[in-house]
Parts: sequence; C-alpha cells; structure tokens
Amino acid sequence: MIERRVRFTVDGSPPQVGRLIDGEVQTLGATGLSGESAPARHPLDAVRLLAPCEPGKVIGVAANYRDHAAEMGRPVPTTPRIFLKAQSAVVGPGDPIVIPPRTVRVDHEAELGVVIGRRCHRVRPEDALEVILGFTAVNDVTARDFQRADGIFGRGKGFDTFCPVGPCIAVGLDPRDLAVRTRVNGALRQDGRTSDMVFDVPTLIAFISDIMTLMPGDLIATGTPAGVGPIQPGDLVEIEVEGVGVLSNPVCARDDREG
Amino acid sequence: MIERRVRFTVDGSPPQVGRLIDGEVQTLGATGLSGESAPARHPLDAVRLLAPCEPGKVIGVAANYRDHAAEMGRPVPTTPRIFLKAQSAVVGPGDPIVIPPRTVRVDHEAELGVVIGRRCHRVRPEDALEVILGFTAVNDVTARDFQRADGIFGRGKGFDTFCPVGPCIAVGLDPRDLAVRTRVNGALRQDGRTSDMVFDVPTLIAFISDIMTLMPGDLIATGTPAGVGPIQPGDLVEIEVEGVGVLSNPVCARDDREG
Repeated sequence: MIERRVRFTVDGSPPQVGRLIDGEVQTLGATGLSGESAPARHPLDAVRLLAPCEPGKVIGVAANYRDHAAEMGRPVPTTPRIFLKAQSAVVGPGDPIVIPPRTVRVDHEAELGVVIGRRCHRVRPEDALEVILGFTAVNDVTARDFQRADGIFGRGKGFDTFCPVGPCIAVGLDPRDLAVRTRVNGALRQDGRTSDMVFDVPTLIAFISDIMTLMPGDLIATGTPAGVGPIQPGDLVEIEVEGVGVLSNPVCARDDREG
Repeated sequence: MIERRVRFTVDGSPPQVGRLIDGEVQTLGATGLSGESAPARHPLDAVRLLAPCEPGKVIGVAANYRDHAAEMGRPVPTTPRIFLKAQSAVVGPGDPIVIPPRTVRVDHEAELGVVIGRRCHRVRPEDALEVILGFTAVNDVTARDFQRADGIFGRGKGFDTFCPVGPCIAVGLDPRDLAVRTRVNGALRQDGRTSDMVFDVPTLIAFISDIMTLMPGDLIATGTPAGVGPIQPGDLVEIEVEGVGVLSNPVCARDDREG
C-alpha cells in the first residue's frame, strides 16, 4: 500500500501536511506551532499543493543513466559524481519555472527524487530503505550553456525556480523499476526507467551518506535519462515518475524590469 | 567600530549569541524559545565558540585569486564560477577536521567569508553592503584528489567537517584589503590579500543574488589565495582573516570502525 503525502495550503492557510486519497487531500495535521488540526478532507482542486518536502540540501547525481551520459558526451561514471543544487531553487507543483536573461538554453531533466526520512550518515546499502521517507519527482532544470561554460554546476542548476518537486512523496514505493518521463506541451521528450540507473538508490544513499550527514527532508535527485531538451517561455513541462504522479510546471521569462 | 559577534555555549547551555569585548564574551540573548536572557559576561576560555552563523546555503567561488588560479592550472575566470558546498559540513572553532578514508590529499583553503544579513535577490553591487551582516573566516577544506577525479565539487568539498567557520562575524569591517592567511602547525602556508580577488565582494553579491535568493545566515566563501597545501591527522590549521581573528582547527583521521 503506497501512501502519497503532500504539503498544501487551502484558502490561504499556513502549510499543512496531508495525504492524497481518492482525489482528495486528507489533512494529517498543521505544521505550525498550533498543534494538530482536526482531520479534514479537501477536493484536490481546492488546495494549492506545495513542494512536498523542505530540503536543507538537494544533492544531484551527474550522468547516472548510460543513455544520458552518451547524449552529453560523457563517459559512464565508475563512481557517482555528485553536486549540490541550491535548495532556494525548490518550487512546487504548478509554480512557474522562470527563465533568467542571458541564458540561451534551459533544459528539463526528469528525475526520481529520494526524500530522506531521518538523520543518518554512513548508511550501508542494505540499510538504505530505512532512512528513506519516500520518493518524488524532480525537474533538475539546467541552464545548459552556463553549466558548460562553468564546468561546475552552481550557476547552471542553481537559479530560483530551477528545482520543481512533487506532486507528492510516495511512501512505500519500490524505486527499482519506475518509468521516468518528461512531456513538453504534451509531447513525450524523455521516457526512461530507473532500472537503467548506473548507480541504484541504495548505492547512492550509501555513497552520499559516507560523505555528508543527511537530514530529514533532504532530497537526492538521482539523475536523468536521455532526451533532455530545451524549454521556452509559454511551455508546460510535465515530469512523471511512475507511482508518484505528474509534476506540472509552466515556463515563463524573468522580467528584469521588476525588482 | 567593528563588532565581533559569536555563537557559543557555556556550561552546556543551548547556543547563545554574544559579542567579543576585551577578551570576554558578552551575551546578546539566548536563541531559544525562552526569550532574551539577562546580559552576562564570560571569560573567552570559559565558553565554547560555535560556528558564528547557521547557513542554509554555503556558496563557494572557484579560482577567485589570480595566483591560486595559476597554481591550479586554471585560467583567470572572466565570470565568477560558483559552487554549493554542503552546509552539513559546517563546524566551529576548535572542532576537528576529520579526514575520510580513501582520499590521499586534503587541502586547506583560507577564505574571507561573507555572512548575509537579510533575504535578498538581484542586489546591485552598489547596494551589496546593505545585505551583508558581516565577515568571517572560512576554511574551504577540499579533498583535492576527489575534486580532480569528479570535475565537480560535491564530493571533494562536501565531507562533514570540511567547512570550519569563525571565530566571529566582524560587523562593520571593510572587506576590500584584508590579509588572508593559513598557518599549519605554526608555519605560514597562505598569505594573500582580499584586494587581489578577481571579483570583489560587491560583484560577487550581485552575481550570486542574480541567480539565487540569499537568506540570513547564508555564507559566501569568496575564494582562496595561492599556497593551498595538504593537511594531515595531527596537524593544527589556523585560518586568519585580518579584522576577524584566527579560526583554529585540529585535524584527525576518521575511524571507520565506529558508526
């Protein structure tokens, strides 16, 4: 049984946590200081979903699918190559991806996201599932020209709004063979499976937690399959992870006239 | 008049904030829920200093001194090259830098740290000082072999304890021409000046805040001058930033037998 946890606001409320059941959001309790609120149900279209986690760290994995490594002209890595993505880039379902000026190439990257459930370090692969809260969908939006010019990824992957996450955290999902897809304006652009990852989820958890202590809410974006490509203002980008759902975000241009 | 703000514990207290005056720490108030505590003074050797800020993000700048770019075999950048350093790596004065197994080359990197004072984005260079709380010293500890092998910096600069910060935040300091030094076991290893930065502090604030929203406590490590070199278990590493003070950390090896 897979539980789908969400964060949301309803009628301007503070953020709440809930679960998706039969097209409704059932409140699990307020996250504020006021304590648990009474359980309630809201139609999905009556709430605004937020990013389902609030990561202190977003850890990305470069070239973790063979076909994507090939399309980027990169060798298949023999050790995971990790980077940090600015956590200030996280946005939720429906929030716009804002294209900054001066970049000429911003790409979608559909990824399985792993949400950490408890503080941990030096986790063995066989214990990895114990530290995972669940799985989500991530769009690791990337200004490809900046990424290539810099060689390092702080700028190209760090702009505000470049990390849509959601729509839920699927608790109890088996991550080993899930479809990971992108559609842009309805057209299929990426269509991979997590079974094609170079390094699987337990291997990544062990590798990353050997380096850095992971905290509840931390997010690992596990890499993208082949088919990355540009998005433009006016597009609608949908990232689908099987068992999680569809993360949908419109794309707009930044208006540098405003502050 | 420069104020030197610290975070500290005394006799096992929760973290408190204070300022350094005449070799004493004067309490500014507890940071917990219990409200402001009565002002008190403690001899410096009676308190344990903590990292003076709790950054949500640590943003590093690669090759921001010409002489360091040269020693790394890198061109002098024409645009700032930025990376994110895992904020879980932050430790305070006196905390050990723990060398993980399998790396054979861990280097010190002395840097001027900029601590952000308020939420901001798209700051103009001429307004940069308004968003800065103050300045500190950072040791951007780097596993050079991992950094070189990966090309990206998530692993090499991300290990727990690889970001000592402190001993204080110097509020009101002019960052334009400060000595930045490393001593290892008392021997001078780095001796640069912030006036030799390729991109100065206002330029960096403008560049970074055009990419990502900065939050109070966020830390920018502004790059290191020439003279980076290895540290070993048993060493004592001192990072000095003129006007901030000396950040001193012992080095030890990780014991992989423990959990």
